[in-house]
Amino acid sequence: MKKIFKNIFTKKDSRSPEDGIFFDALKAILGFDPVSLEPYRRAFTHRSSNKHDDKGNPVNYERLEFLGDAMLSSVIAAHLFNEVPSGDEGYLTKMRSKIVSREHLNELGRDLNLIGFIDSKIAPVHFGENVHGNIFEALVGAIYLDQGYPYCEIFIQKRVIEPYVDIPRLEGKVISYKSLLIEWCQKEKLAFHYDVFEDNGIDGQRLYGVRLSIGGKVVSKARATSKKKAEEKASQRAYFAFQEKINKK
Amino acid sequence: MKKIFKNIFTKKDSRSPEDGIFFDALKAILGFDPVSLEPYRRAFTHRSSNKHDDKGNPVNYERLEFLGDAMLSSVIAAHLFNEVPSGDEGYLTKMRSKIVSREHLNELGRDLNLIGFIDSKIAPVHFGENVHGNIFEALVGAIYLDQGYPYCEIFIQKRVIEPYVDIPRLEGKVISYKSLLIEWCQKEKLAFHYDVFEDNGIDGQRLYGVRLSIGGKVVSKARATSKKKAEEKASQRAYFAFQEKINKK
Repeated sequence: MKKIFKNIFTKKDSRSPEDGIFFDALKAILGFDPVSLEPYRRAFTHRSSNKHDDKGNPVNYERLEFLGDAMLSSVIAAHLFNEVPSGDEGYLTKMRSKIVSREHLNELGRDLNLIGFIDSKIAPVHFGENVHGNIFEALVGAIYLDQGYPYCEIFIQKRVIEPYVDIPRLEGKVISYKSLLIEWCQKEKLAFHYDVFEDNGIDGQRLYGVRLSIGGKVVSKARATSKKKAEEKASQRAYFAFQEKINKK
Repeated sequence: MKKIFKNIFTKKDSRSPEDGIFFDALKAILGFDPVSLEPYRRAFTHRSSNKHDDKGNPVNYERLEFLGDAMLSSVIAAHLFNEVPSGDEGYLTKMRSKIVSREHLNELGRDLNLIGFIDSKIAPVHFGENVHGNIFEALVGAIYLDQGYPYCEIFIQKRVIEPYVDIPRLEGKVISYKSLLIEWCQKEKLAFHYDVFEDNGIDGQRLYGVRLSIGGKVVSKARATSKKKAEEKASQRAYFAFQEKINKK
């Protein structure tokens, strides 16, 4: 009798409250509804949790990193191929390695606060910096298992390409968006102001939130591990937002 | 007037005889109908042909190699991930690099005789060994441009995974299929015979064709750059064919 009740309550369409919270949080990160929660749970399971499947294989995010890394590389390859028709093989290879660099993946994972979902026996403070990028890769792998390649493309477009893949910057042609933005404000005679709206440390990792106002209106926000980085990121976002407006005119 | 005629005759649905030949040959290699011939033409265009698009960008297969390599890596990654649930990240990475090794890609390209389609100002004898693998990668890139990721999966399944991705062999557990096959024939009391049906050199590259008969019937054929390699390949094909039959019983 107990077993029947258990089966009813673990059915997909009658999610437990815990699953419901995970589903909603995932949906916000992914931008679409996950179908099966299982691959995503695995993407957040650290090896220290010591979980195994019924054949004795370890269940954690390490194999998913391999899968996600492959999907990320091919989606970025196709994007660069289409975006930069003048770039040769060497150029495309170099640009891709900048985009999928360890440092960049860590930034992507940290920005989405993926570590907040981790299932582990170790406190997050002991993980080291690369955990952010590793879970990010594993999450891409989970998307592939759950929904296939086209959804990896959608997710990578939204979470990697749109906010971060900035070809002039990667080529080293733009050194600082803050200086580009200030120059533009001065030319347009607009007042600008950066202010720190957040300054906190979670598990020893300090995070700064910076807000940029132009002409008295908040135009962008960004979080990063230093005030300077957060200002640069907020400037980049504002710069692209304005560029779009300028191009639309 | 001349121009109108030219437009009519270059329309997709009224292919020139030359396009028709290329279309049929491609279809045989791909296993499906190409939609646009343009990416495939590029996949067979060597830099020595010195072609450019209307913006002055070089048109040859080098950028397509980058794209095809990325698609190949991700399709093989997904296959290994699903096939070997017990393999960790290090194992999966090692297995994939064996499958997409330069040597293996050259073998794949050579077997399909892709070099026969090449558009070049240089004689094939001057290309070097890697041209076979390079055009193979470029062909995968062309499939992606023409038909998208799912068709890359279909092609790689048919042309790489089914005939060549042999996990026990890659793991080094099987050293020789020839010896496995001979052992099996002796156990089953079946006569076997290898004979060379082809021995020729095109542009200095010697190719051997070997035919394997078991119980008086030809069961497999293979071509390779040495007699020994061709025998091993023919043995592997026969071994898998028999394994399937044994499993079906």
